[in-house]
Amino acid sequence: MGISAEIICIGSELLLGQIVNTNAHYLATELARLGIPHHYQTVVGDNPARIKEVLALASERAGLIITTGGLGPTVDDLTHETLAEFFGVPMVLQNEELKRIEAMFQERQRVMAPSNAKQAMLPLGAAVLPNPIGTAPGLIWQPRSDVTVLTFPGVPREMKRMWAETAVPYLQAQGWGQEVFYSRMLRHWGISESTLAERVSPFLEGSNPTVAPYAHAGEAKLRITARAPNPESARQLIAPVEAQLREITGLDCFGADEDSLAAVVAELLIKRGETVAVAESCTGGLLSEQLTSLSGASQYFLGSIVAYANMAKSDLLGVDTELMIAHGVASAPVVEAMAIGVCKAFGSDWGLAITGIAGPSGGTAQKPIGLVYIALASAQGAVSQQHRFNSRWERELIRQVSTQSALDFLRRTLVRSASFGIMEKQ
Amino acid sequence: MGISAEIICIGSELLLGQIVNTNAHYLATELARLGIPHHYQTVVGDNPARIKEVLALASERAGLIITTGGLGPTVDDLTHETLAEFFGVPMVLQNEELKRIEAMFQERQRVMAPSNAKQAMLPLGAAVLPNPIGTAPGLIWQPRSDVTVLTFPGVPREMKRMWAETAVPYLQAQGWGQEVFYSRMLRHWGISESTLAERVSPFLEGSNPTVAPYAHAGEAKLRITARAPNPESARQLIAPVEAQLREITGLDCFGADEDSLAAVVAELLIKRGETVAVAESCTGGLLSEQLTSLSGASQYFLGSIVAYANMAKSDLLGVDTELMIAHGVASAPVVEAMAIGVCKAFGSDWGLAITGIAGPSGGTAQKPIGLVYIALASAQGAVSQQHRFNSRWERELIRQVSTQSALDFLRRTLVRSASFGIMEKQ
Repeated sequence: MGISAEIICIGSELLLGQIVNTNAHYLATELARLGIPHHYQTVVGDNPARIKEVLALASERAGLIITTGGLGPTVDDLTHETLAEFFGVPMVLQNEELKRIEAMFQERQRVMAPSNAKQAMLPLGAAVLPNPIGTAPGLIWQPRSDVTVLTFPGVPREMKRMWAETAVPYLQAQGWGQEVFYSRMLRHWGISESTLAERVSPFLEGSNPTVAPYAHAGEAKLRITARAPNPESARQLIAPVEAQLREITGLDCFGADEDSLAAVVAELLIKRGETVAVAESCTGGLLSEQLTSLSGASQYFLGSIVAYANMAKSDLLGVDTELMIAHGVASAPVVEAMAIGVCKAFGSDWGLAITGIAGPSGGTAQKPIGLVYIALASAQGAVSQQHRFNSRWERELIRQVSTQSALDFLRRTLVRSASFGIMEKQ
Repeated sequence: MGISAEIICIGSELLLGQIVNTNAHYLATELARLGIPHHYQTVVGDNPARIKEVLALASERAGLIITTGGLGPTVDDLTHETLAEFFGVPMVLQNEELKRIEAMFQERQRVMAPSNAKQAMLPLGAAVLPNPIGTAPGLIWQPRSDVTVLTFPGVPREMKRMWAETAVPYLQAQGWGQEVFYSRMLRHWGISESTLAERVSPFLEGSNPTVAPYAHAGEAKLRITARAPNPESARQLIAPVEAQLREITGLDCFGADEDSLAAVVAELLIKRGETVAVAESCTGGLLSEQLTSLSGASQYFLGSIVAYANMAKSDLLGVDTELMIAHGVASAPVVEAMAIGVCKAFGSDWGLAITGIAGPSGGTAQKPIGLVYIALASAQGAVSQQHRFNSRWERELIRQVSTQSALDFLRRTLVRSASFGIMEKQ
């Protein structure tokens, strides 16, 4: 029996690039975490002959075949039919599954299309891999003594739930995942990848754990990866290295793994019992969206005013029109007035404001695309920062890094004021 | 010489699933569009021995090798070094590239880290594949008469610019891409994938063009794909099928390809010379963010009030507190008052409002998670819709489909009022 897994992603939309293959990478993370080696990821279209070719290869070189996609209700969803044909068994209707699918439609007050019934058919001998949130079930099947097959729908949120709730416990019970790779990603804002890499360069030579730098959309990351017999031992290898790295990077490190700047800011605000309101111009709602992306946002977020029109800046935020004329809308005095204005409008402890030139039009020699001002106001008044992002960047990226920079500004202020007593809430 | 291409994505962060491999799928789309067959996509880590193994296989079975990743400034970025070793040539400093990289740092008022200099080294005989927006250049190289190699950085926006501006013209000049696949994706909102598939079922049997249904995050799509000697012939095969499909789907189809609901709404508003303002509760800024994601948004978007706290709903939007107590915040009367309130606050032609239960907490039997109200106000007053999204969906998905549903409500109203004269601007 092969000791490795192989990932097969099925769907012509993947080959044609119509959708991004997030599934392969989620599964890759999970396989890495469980210490299950995998050497191949294959993408194949909704074509029975080609799917069978890939199955022939995979069933020779791997002991665990994981497929995603091709479980939908339409005529080109053929994964289960093709598996049945390949392993030479008929398809069987799973009555319980059919009832469950019908019930899902009823609950949502919709009529089930006849085509949905075919989702309740599985190859003879295969067990249902339950889908708790969608109509398409997957399967768990040992069609041969040396091959285990798991199938998942292509919809990422369904696949992930099914993987975590059913597939992982099943695999571990079967003896997979006896040595684990465990990674921890340290996340930094306000420092470039190359500066970060040079600052921690001795660590980049280590072997267990390894440390490797990455950069993405303005964020610099350090991935620490350890290999050990179990997660606890891996974590013990990682912990001292993480502590030393955090000692070096200090406030530049805002968190690890799934931590986001928004989540870190939310936690700090909740701990202090403080609230924030937001005034946005060029980011157009993105900062508000980030701050409310977390459950329980109403504890710290009161609301925002997206003042896109200049009239809204004066009417709703109380920014003096003369100030806009004298300094321009993208300026330190205007962003500070916006922050103070939104603080007053919502009666919040903190007011966070952004204005700038996101492009692609609107840039000048004095005020180029990528010039962004961020201000933070409290009862003590407002302070602002000027940023000059790469003017070649797309509008969306400039909006993203502006948003993250604003969150980072608030984060650093909250952390510093907790440590040194400056800008404390009165 | 092999007539197919092979995509190799390099980076341990891909194998470990730390980042999503969007590059493979962008390149897949492009290869499909150019009619260049590709049968394999491989992901490999930052490991010279394994990269060489993959190169050995790829250089046997493909005539065009496209790599992404491993061109950064850090010690684990090894793509060019490994290519040089594999094909047995030394690395050479490209003086012009070094000057360009130094100039980029100067422009951004940053000091170049010494490690960035290595990005200007290429294998002997390779030409620079210029990177107009980042420090890492790629290469164009024929290391053997039967193999062409193109390398790209892993950063998607850099890779895409380099592909479109340099690689595609180069490949076409070399005789690649003589028969094209051309796809057009029709996009629908407010109809399920299975209902859509059944409504257009005769078209799903076609061969050239083919028609295939997809669904993603509440949106139902139909992909029409034609194969022809050139894009113009492919478009001619697609056009009549598209026309017939649009005849069947009517207003459910909001656009094609890169069209978004936000872009379609923007175009309709600009054409009518009208403006919109937004009031958001559960979507927390996402609707505003969508409406401002396009350049020139100030022509139609005046701003928004994200009224997360109930006090903000009364103070800033003028929603009667008694109304919120009587009907609950997630209710038709409240959402209509929000839409009317934001219309007045900004003096806009249209006011669009959303309130509901995005979860994961806050749901009750009467007001379950996924219950969302959307209202559209004009000088004639307000109308609202109730939606009941799947309560098992994650918060973020409920926020997304709520936002798209609001945009679709405005879109349908604008299109209908143009056709039938209802709800016309006074």
